[in-house]
Amino acid sequence: MNQALNSLRQEMQQKGIDAYLIFNTDDHNSEYIAEDYMFVKFLSGFSGDNAVVVVTENFAGLWTDSRYFISAEKELKNSEIKLMKSSIDISYWQYIKENIKQSGKVSCNGKVITAQNFLKLKKLLSEQNISFDNSTDLSTEIWQNRPKKKLSKIFYLDEKFSGENILIKLSKIREKIKKHNADYFLTSGLDDIAWTLNLRASDISFCPVFFSFLIIEKENKAFLFADQNRFDETIKKYLEKANVKILPYNEIYNFHSQIPESKVIMLDTKTVNSRLYTSFSQKIIDTASPIQLMKAVKNATELKNFETAMIEDGVAMEKFFYKFEKNLEKNVPMTELSAAKMLLDERKKSKNFLFESFECISAFNLHAAMPHYAPNEKDDCAIEKDGVYLVDSGGQYLLGTTDITRTIPTGKFSLDFARDYTLVLIGNLNLAMQKFPSGTTGSRLDVLARQALWQHGLDFGHGTGHGVGYCLNCHEGPHGFSSSASKNNSIALEEGMIITDEPGFYKEGFYGIRHENMLEVKKSKLKDFMEFSVMTLCHIDTRPIVKSLLTLPQIEFLNAYNKNVYDTLEKYLNKEEKEYLKNKTLPI
Amino acid sequence: MNQALNSLRQEMQQKGIDAYLIFNTDDHNSEYIAEDYMFVKFLSGFSGDNAVVVVTENFAGLWTDSRYFISAEKELKNSEIKLMKSSIDISYWQYIKENIKQSGKVSCNGKVITAQNFLKLKKLLSEQNISFDNSTDLSTEIWQNRPKKKLSKIFYLDEKFSGENILIKLSKIREKIKKHNADYFLTSGLDDIAWTLNLRASDISFCPVFFSFLIIEKENKAFLFADQNRFDETIKKYLEKANVKILPYNEIYNFHSQIPESKVIMLDTKTVNSRLYTSFSQKIIDTASPIQLMKAVKNATELKNFETAMIEDGVAMEKFFYKFEKNLEKNVPMTELSAAKMLLDERKKSKNFLFESFECISAFNLHAAMPHYAPNEKDDCAIEKDGVYLVDSGGQYLLGTTDITRTIPTGKFSLDFARDYTLVLIGNLNLAMQKFPSGTTGSRLDVLARQALWQHGLDFGHGTGHGVGYCLNCHEGPHGFSSSASKNNSIALEEGMIITDEPGFYKEGFYGIRHENMLEVKKSKLKDFMEFSVMTLCHIDTRPIVKSLLTLPQIEFLNAYNKNVYDTLEKYLNKEEKEYLKNKTLPI
Repeated sequence: MNQALNSLRQEMQQKGIDAYLIFNTDDHNSEYIAEDYMFVKFLSGFSGDNAVVVVTENFAGLWTDSRYFISAEKELKNSEIKLMKSSIDISYWQYIKENIKQSGKVSCNGKVITAQNFLKLKKLLSEQNISFDNSTDLSTEIWQNRPKKKLSKIFYLDEKFSGENILIKLSKIREKIKKHNADYFLTSGLDDIAWTLNLRASDISFCPVFFSFLIIEKENKAFLFADQNRFDETIKKYLEKANVKILPYNEIYNFHSQIPESKVIMLDTKTVNSRLYTSFSQKIIDTASPIQLMKAVKNATELKNFETAMIEDGVAMEKFFYKFEKNLEKNVPMTELSAAKMLLDERKKSKNFLFESFECISAFNLHAAMPHYAPNEKDDCAIEKDGVYLVDSGGQYLLGTTDITRTIPTGKFSLDFARDYTLVLIGNLNLAMQKFPSGTTGSRLDVLARQALWQHGLDFGHGTGHGVGYCLNCHEGPHGFSSSASKNNSIALEEGMIITDEPGFYKEGFYGIRHENMLEVKKSKLKDFMEFSVMTLCHIDTRPIVKSLLTLPQIEFLNAYNKNVYDTLEKYLNKEEKEYLKNKTLPI
Repeated sequence: MNQALNSLRQEMQQKGIDAYLIFNTDDHNSEYIAEDYMFVKFLSGFSGDNAVVVVTENFAGLWTDSRYFISAEKELKNSEIKLMKSSIDISYWQYIKENIKQSGKVSCNGKVITAQNFLKLKKLLSEQNISFDNSTDLSTEIWQNRPKKKLSKIFYLDEKFSGENILIKLSKIREKIKKHNADYFLTSGLDDIAWTLNLRASDISFCPVFFSFLIIEKENKAFLFADQNRFDETIKKYLEKANVKILPYNEIYNFHSQIPESKVIMLDTKTVNSRLYTSFSQKIIDTASPIQLMKAVKNATELKNFETAMIEDGVAMEKFFYKFEKNLEKNVPMTELSAAKMLLDERKKSKNFLFESFECISAFNLHAAMPHYAPNEKDDCAIEKDGVYLVDSGGQYLLGTTDITRTIPTGKFSLDFARDYTLVLIGNLNLAMQKFPSGTTGSRLDVLARQALWQHGLDFGHGTGHGVGYCLNCHEGPHGFSSSASKNNSIALEEGMIITDEPGFYKEGFYGIRHENMLEVKKSKLKDFMEFSVMTLCHIDTRPIVKSLLTLPQIEFLNAYNKNVYDTLEKYLNKEEKEYLKNKTLPI
């Protein structure tokens, strides 16, 4: 019996709430959240990122997307909470519309829902005469033993890393504020704030950010809402010099009363939480955060540093794979967890490594068929010969953020696997090799990663690629290779943007395949055209390739890539590792 | 001096109009229009389809898209009207906003602007306090010698052609009316009406339609607004039996007064003209015409008939090409116009041929570089050896509508041409060969037609493909391969849809290349996947192909296609033609 669910329902009854909604994020609309925000996990056991939970008197459902269908099924088993499949089952708001009586009351904690979603939902429900209020946080009442908020050390990211100082960044943002005829720009995006101020921390696992809000005034002031005592004297002085005043974290919700009614606030309702949004009586200009695009287009220093980060990461990967294959050879037992640890240990040896950029997906056989599986004590399994091992991992370095996936057979493999491995690889190469006119969006190119798979009736259910931060979030907007028509559709790929190229194929119950590289967007020598340059440095295993499926340009591209991996990394490897990599990168 | 423009300005002054807007369509938002609607051409000399003219006291500009930049430059030369390039120059509404004084007056003939455009424009201009009225048709005052309206014979399209009778069509539409909780559905789309009633005519060149409006009542009545005396007794009886009442054409504008205020009208503001829209005080439900999708998905009879139409069209094409090449060989003089006539003469021999489906683009060398050039007495030029000839043409048959483009060298050709010819061909093959998951939109596939061109820094400025009617408009929605993110983005390709596959490349001043086939969307044997089947039957000239650029599957697909053309058509050809085609379709 789900005790927490029971308690929640009791609270709901007392407060006359017919349906309670739980969103799996924090006050900053973060993708990854700190432990003390994981109310969905506490209530349901579900460990994925994307989730909305709806609880009524006699129903509880969790909505998530196809990446998590398999894992959610397992995790929700004994929770009394039903898995509801996004885009397949009825949507959660439709469910509420159809199951809550007229003049019913729906409630949520408005700090963990964006203003845009809140307003949209409120409007939808009002059509049915259902009220939707955003002021009820039931987690405080029923979440016993809730983890304490952990606040990490905030540090300054030197200009030799960031490539652009705080004053220039602030002045660029102020130009945008003036362009929109606003007085203030408010951002709650933790990576927006870390980027602007050239500060980093680790308040959220895998993300070098700290809990805060930032308001930038159009002329010369700025207000950072974060606990004062988290900043050392040097940083305090640094911020003071930039005219950034530190105010208590929660003071943001009173900021509206500190400024005249006539002022105009610019913010993005797609990311700012609904409580913060509704605190303002001033005029709001709703627009995408201008920081998004500034941050996405890397400067020359960042791009240069990324090259070194890629070498450090590549060396760790190759040393890991060498050990991994030696272990297989010598029958040294390995599990998904122990392999992940082995890889982390290699990364830790890198000079500029901070921590992993996301939870390492170290997955064997059928586990690899779950695109977002991460090994844990309960599910951990042995890695054996003649199977398929997929590892999707990355690091936060002072010199950049990495995200790489490789798939390798651990011995013999089937013809089916070889074909699927090759088709996914063709998708990866196809995209990386494509030149395209300036102004082209990522979504127009998406099909290139699926073309070969589609010819065999195969596809994958996730996006093809996302932006990557610089010592910041591993998933970063606003661009992307998206399969959906609506998402990221209008963002053109610009010189200096970074994007992952990660097609996959998942054979449920058997194996998963994904090949992921990071690409840099560059100007092509061809007039008005752009092209990609592969940043990631780690060999592609050529053993399973069905060469006849590849075109000559694809073969040449692959061979040149593997050669470049060897040529760049060999000086960082010992004799055995070097020999191993030499072998692995022989042309096909 | 432009007399007509002068007269227009005088009329404007008398009526206190600061800017007059002219849209190049008719009361039905038709793409091709009858001569008596060609006010833009009368005023400016511009002969393209897409045009908006803005006239003020001291400015006159014509906005059109990239397809017409070259031809518009020439045609507008002595008109005193300036070419304004869409998506490059300032938009026409922005121009008005910036150049018309506050409380200025803008006017137009509201019957030739869609309700949606009118409302949008009115709102935009009101921001500047500029009024926009839709009740002033100045063409009647100043257009002397305006061509008389030509009304053609209306005929019944037998069920053996249409495959579905009027009663079934009406009942399907009525289901949609009920689903939307409306009382009436109004359509002004001439092809919508022809399709629904299984009637055809030729009121507009190339389009087998007749001027009319149709209102379908949700239960069992319908009202056709068209001149009574155009229908013979058989058709009158046929319509009466289907409970379709014929009312005078212009009575549509009074229909609002014939029905209670409480009734609900369903219509599409994207196609219904603004005057008609504003005549209603009743509630309007604005939704895409349900006929669009019904018409786009061809029934089994239509698809079967199309096969025969493709044979008839293919035989005409091959006989034409045989003669064309013989003429070249024997130095018989040919011009673009004489070649177009030669092709039309071949089509006319086909049993089921009615007339051309659009103005034949018979273009030599630099003329072919203008994607929408059509030969005329003034520009007609000789077709000579060692050049490039492009012919884009089609026919209206009782068994379907065709649209085909072929490009051939008329002798020796450059390496550049061979490469470009091959790259365009790869785009055509790439798209035709692609399998894709059910639910995929045409716009997601568009890049496949550009992939090879892009690798060489080349592209084309028009869409990659459009739907085609059945003995109806050559350009038919709602689906398409579109390069723009906004257009047709949400329409999935469905089994039974027809779509053209027509990438191109245009080297201004030198040559143009386009390879166009019609494709049928079919279910694939692969589960939940779709695929294309090429409908068009006419050989692809293999002489200019740079074989090394093609992949093996592309070569095999092309060879199989050419073989199928020969195998299907040879029985309709004489000995010489057969030998010619045998030669042309040899595998590469």
